Amino acid sequence: MSARYLLPYAPDDLAPLPAGLAESVLVWDGDSPAPAAEALAGVEFFCLPYMRHPVALRLIPSLPALRVVQTLTAGMDDVLPHVPAGVTACNARGLHDASTAELAVTLILASLRGIPRFTRLQAEGRWSQEFHQSLADKNVLILGHGSIGRALAARLAPFECAVMPVARTARPDEGVHAVAELPTLLPAADVVVLLTPLTPETRHLVDASFLARMKDGALLVNVARGPVVDTDALLKELTAQRLYAALDVTDPEPLPADHPLWHAPGTLITPHVGGPSSAFLPRAKRLLRAQVLRYAGGEALANVIPMV
Amino acid sequence: MSARYLLPYAPDDLAPLPAGLAESVLVWDGDSPAPAAEALAGVEFFCLPYMRHPVALRLIPSLPALRVVQTLTAGMDDVLPHVPAGVTACNARGLHDASTAELAVTLILASLRGIPRFTRLQAEGRWSQEFHQSLADKNVLILGHGSIGRALAARLAPFECAVMPVARTARPDEGVHAVAELPTLLPAADVVVLLTPLTPETRHLVDASFLARMKDGALLVNVARGPVVDTDALLKELTAQRLYAALDVTDPEPLPADHPLWHAPGTLITPHVGGPSSAFLPRAKRLLRAQVLRYAGGEALANVIPMV
Repeated sequence: MSARYLLPYAPDDLAPLPAGLAESVLVWDGDSPAPAAEALAGVEFFCLPYMRHPVALRLIPSLPALRVVQTLTAGMDDVLPHVPAGVTACNARGLHDASTAELAVTLILASLRGIPRFTRLQAEGRWSQEFHQSLADKNVLILGHGSIGRALAARLAPFECAVMPVARTARPDEGVHAVAELPTLLPAADVVVLLTPLTPETRHLVDASFLARMKDGALLVNVARGPVVDTDALLKELTAQRLYAALDVTDPEPLPADHPLWHAPGTLITPHVGGPSSAFLPRAKRLLRAQVLRYAGGEALANVIPMV
Repeated sequence: MSARYLLPYAPDDLAPLPAGLAESVLVWDGDSPAPAAEALAGVEFFCLPYMRHPVALRLIPSLPALRVVQTLTAGMDDVLPHVPAGVTACNARGLHDASTAELAVTLILASLRGIPRFTRLQAEGRWSQEFHQSLADKNVLILGHGSIGRALAARLAPFECAVMPVARTARPDEGVHAVAELPTLLPAADVVVLLTPLTPETRHLVDASFLARMKDGALLVNVARGPVVDTDALLKELTAQRLYAALDVTDPEPLPADHPLWHAPGTLITPHVGGPSSAFLPRAKRLLRAQVLRYAGGEALANVIPMV
């Protein structure tokens, strides 16, 4: 029987899948060689292996029966250009909420409380008790009020800080401000967290004028996509030691070894690890199982991305 | 008029204090030379300047009218032996909840998500995307269910982890386990956070047998007092790379430059900075003002420590 599903996990790992369905699954993890052309001839549903997009996208032209491309990422900016006309693209909305919102809190707290500095002092065997910033009493602006933004707001709620969510359009009943209000909101923020998708509107949204409105000593946290920030403009503010930054994504990415951002003062860089954590696998399997069952049952798929 | 109050903050900084009271305040920050003996003759209420206990405790024998010693710390283990008979000792219960609980979350997240490692990779300009642990799905045992322990539990609640509070005695209605249950609870914990005061009962509570019951790869977080842990026993587990540790307090403390704990694998050390953060000053002033007003009004003081 020709496989209808090309998935990165075995049917037995998906709770398991029902027997009839399991037989139509071909497993490919993105590391082993791709299956032969004849095995792919009937594949309608392709789930891209996580963190293997470049090699997985090259397989799409070899799938003549393709109907659905499912990612295990929230962002689709790298995938959409490779999705053929008439094929449905689905992202993994919600899958990374726990892991990415948690990393955002980690970056905020580590930066404010001085963990990178204490790590360096530890390497030198130096005990240097000193005052650092606390998240308590701070104003945190969250730019992007999708599912990860809400998960972040929920995690920040008990920390005695104020949270200002900002979305494309205002939702006054939920306390959500509009992007158009940023010029008046930014000067009040101690921490600005970026959680917007990368679109033509958000590319370089954080430019020199955005950064200039941030208050002295404020912290910029990017857990969205690198190009949302104008790297050169940010580097100027960091080099002047006027702002702090904690960046899980950069532009360019990966950051080349000789890039000046690595050594900018007051900057903490993690290598795009919002998603990859122990929280990923159990949530990925739950999401993928539910979506495969929907497709097999002829139900409407979840997380369909409108194609423009 | 002879001063009745010796405080580290000026009356104008205490909201301010009412005029009649303000005149009986003598200000000493612990850094400038101590006031002359005649100025101290009438001091009844002495608030020890924060992080200046050694020099402040030496002043106590020069206060013949002393009635109250107030600290701005939660722990009193270093102070109680210096409080004369008949003098009331008051701690700062609650003052450090926000800052210390926040540091505990910081240490947990920074350790699990690999911030010390990424800080070292950043210094080398190395982008190395890799999986780390997430707090989501973990079991967190909190040893000590006082005000900081409760503040920590509240902050952990939205992180999709399970929290197991442990206190001297069980309180089943609140889900609090007893210390006597530790042997059966420890093997289930992914993270163990120490938040107990240092007493004869808790000294070396975390010994070789306590550590041996912790599961492989578990994380020990100490934001209590260094001697709650047997440092030699912990070092053995860390050197064997069986456990991880994040320590804001150590024994000895400060940790000497040549101590092997600095370079133990999987260990993050911060130099006793649970309290000193930007959250401290506004909360310290509110607490001290309220206590001074109680004393001046003849009301019962808050946070009185029973003398044994």
